[in-house]
Formats: sequence, structure tokens, C-alpha cells
Amino acid sequence: MSKFLFKIVTKLKEEIKDPQGEVVEKISKRLKIFDEIKVQAGKFYGITVVAKDLAEAQQKAGELAKNVLSNPVVETYEIICFEEI
Amino acid sequence: MSKFLFKIVTKLKEEIKDPQGEVVEKISKRLKIFDEIKVQAGKFYGITVVAKDLAEAQQKAGELAKNVLSNPVVETYEIICFEEI
Repeated sequence: MSKFLFKIVTKLKEEIKDPQGEVVEKISKRLKIFDEIKVQAGKFYGITVVAKDLAEAQQKAGELAKNVLSNPVVETYEIICFEEI
Repeated sequence: MSKFLFKIVTKLKEEIKDPQGEVVEKISKRLKIFDEIKVQAGKFYGITVVAKDLAEAQQKAGELAKNVLSNPVVETYEIICFEEI
């Protein structure tokens, strides 16, 4: 058995209004940090697991992201990083 | 002026209880996806901006992460990716 770390991000689909991102855009402009800015907000999960091998870990990580972490109606998910630790 | 994409993650500090992460751990075990799992939940921001150069963009991105996106009392932030697009 080996230990793996993976990082998963879930985001609202492009066509869905993202009020949290819009708030960050407004504040950035008001504070004169960035004037031209587009923000997409989402959720982050740093996940440490034990699995037989990389193939098993990757398959199960996809299952977790798809069935537990994201709502497929309004969200997409992305496994942004995967490493043995 | 150039366009940059950066990705920022904010997470609760290690010592602070993370109920959202614990829920994912419980569900993963109940669904028999991963039995041994540790989850740290957080927030993700994908940010596209226009800035004079990379140095300016990086400095302002740090300012945004520190002053707008994270609560320094209970959270840490990390700029996980930075690229000119």
C-alpha cells in the first residue's frame, strides 16, 4: 500500500452566474489592486489517501470527485495535482 | 500590458477543525471509496488579470490573496500556479 496526495478543484460551469467571484472582482477594483480582473471561485480539496497503487488511487479519486465532491448539474471538477508521498 | 492567470487556494490553518473535510472523509468510508483518507477543504480562485508585467502581477496577486481572499486569523493562502496567457 502507498500513500498519495491529490488536489481537486470544483468550479461552477462557465455559463452559471458566480456571485462570489463577482464580489472579489468588485473589491479588487474598489481597492485599486487590479482594474481588469475576472474571477472564478470554487472549492478546493487536498486529499491524502492510502491505496494499492497509483492506478487504483487515480480511479478512486475520480470516483470521489465525481460522486461526492461535485454537483454535476452545475459544477465541473478537475484533479489539478497527483503525487505519491 | 499583459494578461496573466493565477490560481489561489485558501485553507483553514492546520490546527483548526475542518468540518467540511471531515464530512468528505466519512462519506468516502461509507461508500467504500477510500478507507484511509484525510481531507483538507478550502476555497479556490482562478483569476485572470491584466498587468504591466509579471512582477507587478505577482505582487498584486499576493496583495489580493492576503487582504481580500483569506482571513489571516484562521486561514492560510497559497498561490499554486502563475502563468502569462
